[in-house]
Amino acid sequence: MAALGEETKRLLAQTSTPTLTTQLFKRGLRNTFIQGVVRLNHDRSGVMVGEAYTLRYIPAREDLNGPGEYADRSHPQRRSIEECPPGAVLIADCRRDVRAASGGDILLTRLAGRGVAGMVTDGGMRDTPNIAKLAMPVYIGAPSAPASFHGHAAVDAGVPIACGGVPVYPGDVLVGDADGVVVIPRHLADEVARDAVEQERFEAWVLDEVRAGRSTFGLYPPDEETRRRYQAFRESSGRA
Amino acid sequence: MAALGEETKRLLAQTSTPTLTTQLFKRGLRNTFIQGVVRLNHDRSGVMVGEAYTLRYIPAREDLNGPGEYADRSHPQRRSIEECPPGAVLIADCRRDVRAASGGDILLTRLAGRGVAGMVTDGGMRDTPNIAKLAMPVYIGAPSAPASFHGHAAVDAGVPIACGGVPVYPGDVLVGDADGVVVIPRHLADEVARDAVEQERFEAWVLDEVRAGRSTFGLYPPDEETRRRYQAFRESSGRA
Amino acid sequence: MAALGEETKRLLAQTSTPTLTTQLFKRGLRNTFIQGVVRLNHDRSGVMVGEAYTLRYIPAREDLNGPGEYADRSHPQRRSIEECPPGAVLIADCRRDVRAASGGDILLTRLAGRGVAGMVTDGGMRDTPNIAKLAMPVYIGAPSAPASFHGHAAVDAGVPIACGGVPVYPGDVLVGDADGVVVIPRHLADEVARDAVEQERFEAWVLDEVRAGRSTFGLYPPDEETRRRYQAFRESSGRA
Amino acid sequence: MAALGEETKRLLAQTSTPTLTTQLFKRGLRNTFIQGVVRLNHDRSGVMVGEAYTLRYIPAREDLNGPGEYADRSHPQRRSIEECPPGAVLIADCRRDVRAASGGDILLTRLAGRGVAGMVTDGGMRDTPNIAKLAMPVYIGAPSAPASFHGHAAVDAGVPIACGGVPVYPGDVLVGDADGVVVIPRHLADEVARDAVEQERFEAWVLDEVRAGRSTFGLYPPDEETRRRYQAFRESSGRA
Amino acid sequence: MAALGEETKRLLAQTSTPTLTTQLFKRGLRNTFIQGVVRLNHDRSGVMVGEAYTLRYIPAREDLNGPGEYADRSHPQRRSIEECPPGAVLIADCRRDVRAASGGDILLTRLAGRGVAGMVTDGGMRDTPNIAKLAMPVYIGAPSAPASFHGHAAVDAGVPIACGGVPVYPGDVLVGDADGVVVIPRHLADEVARDAVEQERFEAWVLDEVRAGRSTFGLYPPDEETRRRYQAFRESSGRA
Amino acid sequence: MAALGEETKRLLAQTSTPTLTTQLFKRGLRNTFIQGVVRLNHDRSGVMVGEAYTLRYIPAREDLNGPGEYADRSHPQRRSIEECPPGAVLIADCRRDVRAASGGDILLTRLAGRGVAGMVTDGGMRDTPNIAKLAMPVYIGAPSAPASFHGHAAVDAGVPIACGGVPVYPGDVLVGDADGVVVIPRHLADEVARDAVEQERFEAWVLDEVRAGRSTFGLYPPDEETRRRYQAFRESSGRA
Repeated sequence: MAALGEETKRLLAQTSTPTLTTQLFKRGLRNTFIQGVVRLNHDRSGVMVGEAYTLRYIPAREDLNGPGEYADRSHPQRRSIEECPPGAVLIADCRRDVRAASGGDILLTRLAGRGVAGMVTDGGMRDTPNIAKLAMPVYIGAPSAPASFHGHAAVDAGVPIACGGVPVYPGDVLVGDADGVVVIPRHLADEVARDAVEQERFEAWVLDEVRAGRSTFGLYPPDEETRRRYQAFRESSGRA
Repeated sequence: MAALGEETKRLLAQTSTPTLTTQLFKRGLRNTFIQGVVRLNHDRSGVMVGEAYTLRYIPAREDLNGPGEYADRSHPQRRSIEECPPGAVLIADCRRDVRAASGGDILLTRLAGRGVAGMVTDGGMRDTPNIAKLAMPVYIGAPSAPASFHGHAAVDAGVPIACGGVPVYPGDVLVGDADGVVVIPRHLADEVARDAVEQERFEAWVLDEVRAGRSTFGLYPPDEETRRRYQAFRESSGRA
Repeated sequence: MAALGEETKRLLAQTSTPTLTTQLFKRGLRNTFIQGVVRLNHDRSGVMVGEAYTLRYIPAREDLNGPGEYADRSHPQRRSIEECPPGAVLIADCRRDVRAASGGDILLTRLAGRGVAGMVTDGGMRDTPNIAKLAMPVYIGAPSAPASFHGHAAVDAGVPIACGGVPVYPGDVLVGDADGVVVIPRHLADEVARDAVEQERFEAWVLDEVRAGRSTFGLYPPDEETRRRYQAFRESSGRA
Repeated sequence: MAALGEETKRLLAQTSTPTLTTQLFKRGLRNTFIQGVVRLNHDRSGVMVGEAYTLRYIPAREDLNGPGEYADRSHPQRRSIEECPPGAVLIADCRRDVRAASGGDILLTRLAGRGVAGMVTDGGMRDTPNIAKLAMPVYIGAPSAPASFHGHAAVDAGVPIACGGVPVYPGDVLVGDADGVVVIPRHLADEVARDAVEQERFEAWVLDEVRAGRSTFGLYPPDEETRRRYQAFRESSGRA
Repeated sequence: MAALGEETKRLLAQTSTPTLTTQLFKRGLRNTFIQGVVRLNHDRSGVMVGEAYTLRYIPAREDLNGPGEYADRSHPQRRSIEECPPGAVLIADCRRDVRAASGGDILLTRLAGRGVAGMVTDGGMRDTPNIAKLAMPVYIGAPSAPASFHGHAAVDAGVPIACGGVPVYPGDVLVGDADGVVVIPRHLADEVARDAVEQERFEAWVLDEVRAGRSTFGLYPPDEETRRRYQAFRESSGRA
Repeated sequence: MAALGEETKRLLAQTSTPTLTTQLFKRGLRNTFIQGVVRLNHDRSGVMVGEAYTLRYIPAREDLNGPGEYADRSHPQRRSIEECPPGAVLIADCRRDVRAASGGDILLTRLAGRGVAGMVTDGGMRDTPNIAKLAMPVYIGAPSAPASFHGHAAVDAGVPIACGGVPVYPGDVLVGDADGVVVIPRHLADEVARDAVEQERFEAWVLDEVRAGRSTFGLYPPDEETRRRYQAFRESSGRA
């Protein structure tokens, strides 16, 4: 599949996760919002947009996992830090187990330095004060000091995973804002982006109407008269 | 039952949820604090006080729930947005399921614009950055981008509900601060408000004593001498 | 066992909980990070270091627990407030049940005033806005308005407990930062402190290298060349 | 809506809950299987089929709920015991809280004596040894000795409810076997029953083929040749 | 406090846990039924009655807990196996963590051989097939093969504990049947036993009435006429 | 790695999961017992022993998963049914989500017919009455009627997985009895089997001693005298 286009990225950065989940719902997809993650640093960076680079963990085993495992450059976690493409989002399946971290400030600083667009994990994250200062958006299950080898073994990168109860396929488009992270199947990204921006425009106008004191009845969802009024607004503002 | 009096509202706004739960405990009520909700906007608005206007959701069903359902003005969710009385608190039973929202910025802005005193839900809430800017207090289970129809079907308003594990009857008095939300049975509101303010005054004096270095032994709970000293303080400060 | 030395305290205050969990892992201890607690006041006070003074709760029983129980000076909760040594950390086992508090502003202000180094509970905490203003670090399961007698009965102080899934023995050393709280067995505190500070120094240098654009391959964990470069850095900076 | 026909009931009693969930999936309904309930008495009675008579509980409140509440004949729980129609299934929404019962042997024996087709609750059930001996199927969250007033307040009957995470509307058709209970929207019952019996016949034949040693490839799901063979079987067995 | 009398034991063995929880509710105690345990061997032994001998576990620590710990005769777990009095019930607080056992067939066979009346744990239990054959009732959280040292460290015996969410004080009276286990505060045992047997007699008569086809209205709870009829029944059966 | 030898299989079939977890603990492995699964058919078949053939599911996606997916012979679920080797155990990672099944009677009958040694899933299972009649041991999270496509998408076979919180690598040896299932790393199987049988022999003798009335002090764990007595027993019974 072709790489995610710049225009689609630009449009997605103007939308919000609520709008995107509604667009996906209209296409029959209900389970697209990653559950149980929070944004570490939402005061410091904007909307996160990027294609998913996936990393899969299973529970650690005492004879296999420990500090020594990371010396191997083919180790899936370490490889993902150096090979996740700039502009992509590294997303980790930790089975929603936050008892150990799936990264810390050194790894996340490297990711940010390499131009990666963000990181999402349904596991823990350590060194959160330093990570909260990065410009790169980071979503985590919870702060958790123990290193990954306390509880997680990285076994694969680039395979389909679960994250926060949602299926994520490599290349799916991840969009994150202050509400959380939505997963857009890759083949729907262009049309969802386009329609979401239209929906955002309409809802921004609706919100202005509500702020001006109008009832939501007939306004949201719109009846015929509301549709006419919005059309007139769009024409007068030069958008139609 | 008569509407909640202004004097009781005024007194409740001076109390805190810890004090109110203690007053309710003294009257035999132990399960009065809504579990698992957090305040979205506690830097922007004060104590929430108002009578409960209840909204009840069950899980959504694919053939009944979707964006189209909201066009019906008798839909319980939409009706509650336009009919919840000014000064009341809209409180929603989402079965503690945060996988979908029970409102977003358009609906909550309308509620705030209509003079509603606050909203409480044990489900999700979308568009949380905009909602956090409202002057109206809002308590939620978690930020959650998917619209209500992803997971919730509004089936009733104005009936007894569960919210965060607590029974809520229409007209019960809800008080919210930074700790959370307490549910006061309507018929106890006046006496609880009065006694809570007394308790607050005493505890404020105790806190000053502790800040000044006194031991809690004999002070909290008070022994005879402490009671005398507090009485003297009250008289000297003109309150007795 | 001898009291925790000032030098060890000083070193621990320079480390972080991620580093300490790694040092404990190297000594065979995997379950040392308290799960499910958050710091109430991390903008206002620094790293928490102190020996554990333990308090144990079981579920409350209606005929035994209520406001009256606190008048007894031998009550374990009240005693712990007045007897937890300055410099120690009061840590409470609430069975991870946040439906009731294990303290409020009066008790916590007294603790802080007595020079106690911090408090940790896997239960609730009430009056959180006032507590967040204390200089003493406080870690809690969640804000919760109901007083302890709603759900918890203090039955012991100074005994081994569970807190957030971790064993805590009286005298164990607790260190808390923004990520959370780690429990260091007392007999390991000196050597862990010393080695942790060394690890912190190395990782600070690594982080600077990563900020300067270096790959993590060969750097973290370090290969031979990296070790030589770090040694050179240490010598040049006068630390070796 | 017309009462559930005897022919549809007869067909449903020949199907299984796995087959019914598949038929509902084909009609776009995914969330139809009640989660977290087990059958108390599956050795003693057959498939449960009946229309839902719903009962709704919220958490108990100490001043409202206790043994005395049942003297009132309009009490929703007691009314449901005497008014749930013969042939229907009484289904209770206990918010999946098994800490208290939603019935015991006296009430369940009365239900069975009145010809009610079964009971389903996502709460507790007391006196389970006696109830397990009833001929009427009973599905429960867990055995739980405390009476309903310990934790549940019955507030409504005959309204839409949640049970085990599934929406249940009054009149929906409930079918229960050893796997559990499926909820069939009332308007789909006739067609689902008819198609499910067809699917059961085919799968019984497939199971015989597998028992005879055939591979599932091409058999399940069937390819063209399998379809021809099944058609021939049906004709030879006089069913086509 | 005097030992539990034989007459009270005899009466309790004729009651059921539902009846006992109701008697305790009438005395203001709501949280008396141990949550989340099941009986391993209810086909083989009758009602369990005995005074609580408590055992307390905290999470294991790798340097303290392992197979070697049991050689110490003062180890609380081993001591409890040899010192729990005949006729008492050994009850263990495992913090509802079933990932490791709190006993196996050797220890439980010894307990049964010593005349102990039963065991209750909210943790795991290993060797469950052998234990299910014992005449002594055993209630467990779940079968779990790992020995206690995998996850639990016994730290105390004879202290107040939590088990399945319920407070248990040494000497409390435990009664178990197929529904589960109820905890009766020691000082209430005699009166609760006496009143429970009366309640059982009445409810047995009610159940017979219901089996004979009577409505529960007016019967349960009883109205005046029902009370007269029951009184007549008691007199005619020679019990009054 | 060489196939699991027949002698090791034979020895493992004489052991129990408690003994095996202890042997693995002695080798530093603590997390080897699959949590949250129960055996469907333990009255009908003996100990399960076999090498793991793994199957991995992620959450289903509406546009990818449905009844049609199974027609593809390369589909990981269907392939695993036909390709899991005789004597191996099919083990599925369903992320502990029992809301949908990971198999039913047709697939499981085929597995049993092909000589597969058992199946383990931490998800649901449908058609459980038929499956309970198979001679092949089956361990499940819970009965659950909905087919896998309701909630699970099979994405891989033959890769490392998590099952019930435990890491499972292809070829690991799974042993199941009435307590549950233990995972033995492949390279340890031979020595663990041998030592476990020795431990079983000793514990069988200990159990006989306890049944004869001996105290566990000095017996379990054994002191010097006990060791001598056991040695004498072994010699007299011709085993030494």
